[in-house]
Amino acid sequence: MAELSTSPPLTRASVQVAHERIKSNIHHTPVLTNATISQFASTPQTANALQGTEWQGEEPANPKIWVLFKCENYQRIGAFKARGAFHALGRLIEVVGEDEVRRRGVVTHSSGNHAQALSLAAKTFDIPAHIVMPTISTPSKIAGTKSYGANVIFSGSTSDEREAVVADVIAKTGAILVPPYDHPDIMLGQGTLALELEQQAEEILSDASKSAGKIGIRNNGASLDAVIAPCGGGGMLSGVATALSGTGITVFGAEPSFEGADDARRGLLQGSRIEKVKTLTIADGLRTPVGKIPWTVLSDKTKLHSMYSVTEDQIKKAMRLLLERAKIFVEPSSAVPLAVVLFNEDFRRLVAQEAGDKGWNIGVVLSGGNTTVDAIAKLYAPEAEKLGERQEGKVGMNGEKVAENIAG
Amino acid sequence: MAELSTSPPLTRASVQVAHERIKSNIHHTPVLTNATISQFASTPQTANALQGTEWQGEEPANPKIWVLFKCENYQRIGAFKARGAFHALGRLIEVVGEDEVRRRGVVTHSSGNHAQALSLAAKTFDIPAHIVMPTISTPSKIAGTKSYGANVIFSGSTSDEREAVVADVIAKTGAILVPPYDHPDIMLGQGTLALELEQQAEEILSDASKSAGKIGIRNNGASLDAVIAPCGGGGMLSGVATALSGTGITVFGAEPSFEGADDARRGLLQGSRIEKVKTLTIADGLRTPVGKIPWTVLSDKTKLHSMYSVTEDQIKKAMRLLLERAKIFVEPSSAVPLAVVLFNEDFRRLVAQEAGDKGWNIGVVLSGGNTTVDAIAKLYAPEAEKLGERQEGKVGMNGEKVAENIAG
Repeated sequence: MAELSTSPPLTRASVQVAHERIKSNIHHTPVLTNATISQFASTPQTANALQGTEWQGEEPANPKIWVLFKCENYQRIGAFKARGAFHALGRLIEVVGEDEVRRRGVVTHSSGNHAQALSLAAKTFDIPAHIVMPTISTPSKIAGTKSYGANVIFSGSTSDEREAVVADVIAKTGAILVPPYDHPDIMLGQGTLALELEQQAEEILSDASKSAGKIGIRNNGASLDAVIAPCGGGGMLSGVATALSGTGITVFGAEPSFEGADDARRGLLQGSRIEKVKTLTIADGLRTPVGKIPWTVLSDKTKLHSMYSVTEDQIKKAMRLLLERAKIFVEPSSAVPLAVVLFNEDFRRLVAQEAGDKGWNIGVVLSGGNTTVDAIAKLYAPEAEKLGERQEGKVGMNGEKVAENIAG
Repeated sequence: MAELSTSPPLTRASVQVAHERIKSNIHHTPVLTNATISQFASTPQTANALQGTEWQGEEPANPKIWVLFKCENYQRIGAFKARGAFHALGRLIEVVGEDEVRRRGVVTHSSGNHAQALSLAAKTFDIPAHIVMPTISTPSKIAGTKSYGANVIFSGSTSDEREAVVADVIAKTGAILVPPYDHPDIMLGQGTLALELEQQAEEILSDASKSAGKIGIRNNGASLDAVIAPCGGGGMLSGVATALSGTGITVFGAEPSFEGADDARRGLLQGSRIEKVKTLTIADGLRTPVGKIPWTVLSDKTKLHSMYSVTEDQIKKAMRLLLERAKIFVEPSSAVPLAVVLFNEDFRRLVAQEAGDKGWNIGVVLSGGNTTVDAIAKLYAPEAEKLGERQEGKVGMNGEKVAENIAG
């Protein structure tokens, strides 16, 4: 990776430069709206839904919310990660020199979207890529990564085992490490989605009065009021917060609460970053704790307003709505921000207070769509069966046994 | 319904007029491309895939195909049916008079997308709608129809039972019947999607040389070469064939072959329309035989080139690609045309011959997205279980037992 000292500052202007750099390599993904889901978001939860929460017995909040989905599931490789990979590799070539990078190659460890993203970017620039993947990775992900021409090297699944293999690759080849999220070049790349969302929202909102079937939309010269994005390692959320800094658009983060996956939320409460998380949340892209450099952005109140978390059941309900109502095929991690908008009463009270009668237009980042019909079949199999299986073996949705996740 | 004698002629110009009439009431749905699926379409099938077919032992065809998906799953009510309903109701009001239509109301029988489409159109024009639905309809479809304010009346599931209830409604209220497909006003309305597809394809194709990651595209001043659409009652396919008549764009139809669902294909072979079909194909929108008036278009060689059919397994494979690769949430009926493009060797040989080395840009109509995660879970459950279940009870994917389908 390019030395940290050479990285551009974490500012909106740097994200704009990053966007210019990568925009011919990435898809300008669509922003979609959905009247039914906006109507659900603008309907108070039932008293029942608040049973057993701290809001039990109180009047449910009644915010007016119009959702605009930034569809990174339609991004190349099926997730926003293509942005960061193209930006980081482009910067690396600029700083180190194309011949040198081509001679040495790049390396990363990932079993997911970053592996495919880096492989694609490396293939585009004709650079060798070494991807260290746990042997227990799902065959489709291994095949996907290989299909971009990457050299896949297998490792054990603990972080120690993976890092040992990466060190070995570096020793043998001189390959340069491109980490998945804990680097400014990655963060700036991911943040470019927010610049597109901001502009697309303006176009949609200015055109809304002409469209049929739209409800609850603020179209009196309105633009985007807020953005909510999922948070795993925090590379994308910190990039979004950086991109929108100073624009007046409020940025929120969303996490699963299952088995402590809401490390960023808890870290903000306790005033320090949580470095280890061990969770098998269905939102498998969000099992990682926040990285050091993303944390510097996320803990800045002028950039990120706050973090909210949701249960596994709420994530499944939101995902069902995205699939069945909006007809958008997403992976569970993508459904987490919508779950916050629909079901987190703290968030809904805040919006009701801040937005008042005119409501808020909220950009909701759908981070990716890399799941399978088999995983969905398993996710929505009758509850009894599935709970039994998960309690028994502590097995993730893809059948993998996940080791402790440690922030990079 | 407006008297047949008042209907505009079945010409491209009439479809253009229909489009002007309805375009403020419908969504201008997106056209999406997918490099991976186009690459699959441009790769010969394996020798294995041709085992047991008439092409066994021959060299698999090697057509060059670029697919462009017209996404009517993003249409209002989740399917193209909104187009025909808005057009038919608008025409009815024009011919009969708004007050008269409002006084009498409209009626139809449907357990599916047409029920919701007519309910929505009627609500928009403040006209009472009576929808006759079999008692065995899935609860979500009944709820969906009621949510548009329609008066839902239950009937038995045979066509005699349904028609008796419709006759009863008409006798009591004077309501005017709006049939699902067998009427020129419906056909002209559905055909409007082809006009949009034609123009969107031109925009995409002229821009293709600028886009990253695009493969196999004909961009040397190319436009759309062909369109393939699914065929149930034939209202939409005949509308598409009418809309594109005289443009030089070749129109094909696609059907499931399961239990004789390919009635249009068989009808064309024998030279006469097949009036009865009894099938539980997973493509539940395509279980109906072709209607009388659509048949007049589909049997016209100058309008429809030919029909092709595919197996249940091929439909499932194509649907899996649409979900997992293109991230587009569709119902099984939508996957039938793509299944033809990928797996029907007759079709692929024809394209290889007609298109030659420069290949064809083929518009593929995705007709709707009204399915559920539960139906998908069932569809992709382990083969052994599912086959057992279907053989045992002859139960459709939604759990309903479907009566004989008779063309209207």
